Amino acid sequence: MALLSGSANEQCTVALDGTGGDHQLDTRPVVDAVRFALALYPSLYLIVFGSSQLELDLTKAGVNKKRYEFRLAQQSIPQDEAPRSVLTNYAHSAMVQALECVKSGQAQAMLSSGGTGPLVTLARHILGVQQLSAAKVKLKSKLGLCPRSGRVRPCFAARIPVGPQRFALMLDLGANATCSAADLYDFACLGHACAQLSLERDHPRLALLNVGVELGKGNALVQRAKDILEQDRSLQFTGFIEANRIFNDDADVIVTDGFTGNVALKAAEGVANIYASSAGMKKFFAKMARPDWLLPWQYNGSVLLGVNGIVVKSHAAAGKEALAVAMVEAARAAQANLAAKMQERLTAQ
Amino acid sequence: MALLSGSANEQCTVALDGTGGDHQLDTRPVVDAVRFALALYPSLYLIVFGSSQLELDLTKAGVNKKRYEFRLAQQSIPQDEAPRSVLTNYAHSAMVQALECVKSGQAQAMLSSGGTGPLVTLARHILGVQQLSAAKVKLKSKLGLCPRSGRVRPCFAARIPVGPQRFALMLDLGANATCSAADLYDFACLGHACAQLSLERDHPRLALLNVGVELGKGNALVQRAKDILEQDRSLQFTGFIEANRIFNDDADVIVTDGFTGNVALKAAEGVANIYASSAGMKKFFAKMARPDWLLPWQYNGSVLLGVNGIVVKSHAAAGKEALAVAMVEAARAAQANLAAKMQERLTAQ
Repeated sequence: MALLSGSANEQCTVALDGTGGDHQLDTRPVVDAVRFALALYPSLYLIVFGSSQLELDLTKAGVNKKRYEFRLAQQSIPQDEAPRSVLTNYAHSAMVQALECVKSGQAQAMLSSGGTGPLVTLARHILGVQQLSAAKVKLKSKLGLCPRSGRVRPCFAARIPVGPQRFALMLDLGANATCSAADLYDFACLGHACAQLSLERDHPRLALLNVGVELGKGNALVQRAKDILEQDRSLQFTGFIEANRIFNDDADVIVTDGFTGNVALKAAEGVANIYASSAGMKKFFAKMARPDWLLPWQYNGSVLLGVNGIVVKSHAAAGKEALAVAMVEAARAAQANLAAKMQERLTAQ
Repeated sequence: MALLSGSANEQCTVALDGTGGDHQLDTRPVVDAVRFALALYPSLYLIVFGSSQLELDLTKAGVNKKRYEFRLAQQSIPQDEAPRSVLTNYAHSAMVQALECVKSGQAQAMLSSGGTGPLVTLARHILGVQQLSAAKVKLKSKLGLCPRSGRVRPCFAARIPVGPQRFALMLDLGANATCSAADLYDFACLGHACAQLSLERDHPRLALLNVGVELGKGNALVQRAKDILEQDRSLQFTGFIEANRIFNDDADVIVTDGFTGNVALKAAEGVANIYASSAGMKKFFAKMARPDWLLPWQYNGSVLLGVNGIVVKSHAAAGKEALAVAMVEAARAAQANLAAKMQERLTAQ
């Protein structure tokens, strides 16, 4: 399952925002997840930011102090705080401090279950945004797309299970609620590079999520994005994909806007949850029936691609296992040096 | 399960477009579905439009000739045919003839598995579009929304299973790939009226599909739609709903644009299919595990709301059971006189 090729023996440090998500009052899921992640990943070291209660509960639970360091961060950022306020009023928040750790090199990755909006705004601001290659910028200019001086539009990507030991990347999953066709092109470039690095596919098959596979289907956004993707010969663009085929290994990279991507994955999760939440014998059968590779918490841990540093977001409502899996995801990305390698690939393409 | 209150004893006639969908060459699914639907619904009479092969196969299969009438329609419309061509070149197609049957009163409903685009274009053109009440038109004008002389924007609605014997309505599921906030308001009005009629809820809870439930979440479209819905006191607008809660009975009417709605339902279907397609013992367990109310073919049969006649669309790839269920759905809507009652409600609100 080690999809990123870093060595798990070198120590790597992940900064954990312990204040976000639905764990504000009950620290147990965070404490359990920390224990679980440290057990799963022997070379992981954590810098945990959070409340004094969290500090106390980590100590009480007997978590090995050699494996983590605690830093107090009482301030937490409301999920829907306005970007301007996020940038000016939360210097002492766990989220800002964890990102600063990545910026300064104290940590190789950070993980947060906090609000998507604040996390994307702060990550872009603190870590900076990656650059597309000169060739891509030229193509965008030629197509009349504002190339934003070459800066890529960051987006959330997650690995989607598509079979035993097989994954696809889907992006954007919610970093951008409104996207232009140029943004979808950026996501495609990021997804292409990330699939090469993390899925080890030399020529990832890239598809655009749509309501049908026929050429004329969908809205103006996907039609325009299709036209652009067809112009870039360095990408293996295979056309449209419908949402009922997301899990069928038809594509290695599934590109969509952040609104649609978020809805698609959550709808899928909703059905999986219905199976998982049955009672009595049905619960037993559901457990037996679930394909081994379709574990709900394998979804957890979206990586923010396109920023100069590794930022992983966990579901706000993630259970302890899911949160631990996201920590391991962050550690793997860190050991594979994902952010720096992404910039190398983006520049080379 | 009889959600619409018509009597199943009176004969009702459904016109069936037997040429659409993925059954163009293999007529068996259509033949089997016809037999199955006639058995399920004793008062159903069908006018079947299709190829001479279909006519032959229906005869060969020994389907009771007192229960259906066959009319030859060799022409079929490509899924992605352009609207202008659809309106001018296909007078002899099964889809056009089936719609004409509804228009003339020969049939009380029609069913097609053909292309969404052609079906919506033709249904609007042949049957005409329903009207919003004067009060709604006034509200739309006041809010600066072009009220299109009171004509509603038609959309596809389907019943979503949300528990044993419980359903919600979701709309639009793909009639409109691009929607304005005013369109979402129209869908809300249609959904409200339809839920009152078909789910027998006096005050249906109405929610807007979004990527989060916090007030500021989502794109400009859902934000604007929320502002509009809050202005209409006759609707019980409860706010946003996330896609992982679609099946959890949090709302009676789930409003979304046709692109997002289509993706959400197909993603859900994709996961259900993975369970259903397991092999060996896992297949057995999956069958045992499936909540009784979450049958995949219960999704089938979206009703086009907002036109002056009952138009039901079946999945292009629907199996025979699903196609039969869609026929029964059409018959039930016909016996409940859904289209006429919808116009009454819309005018009264």
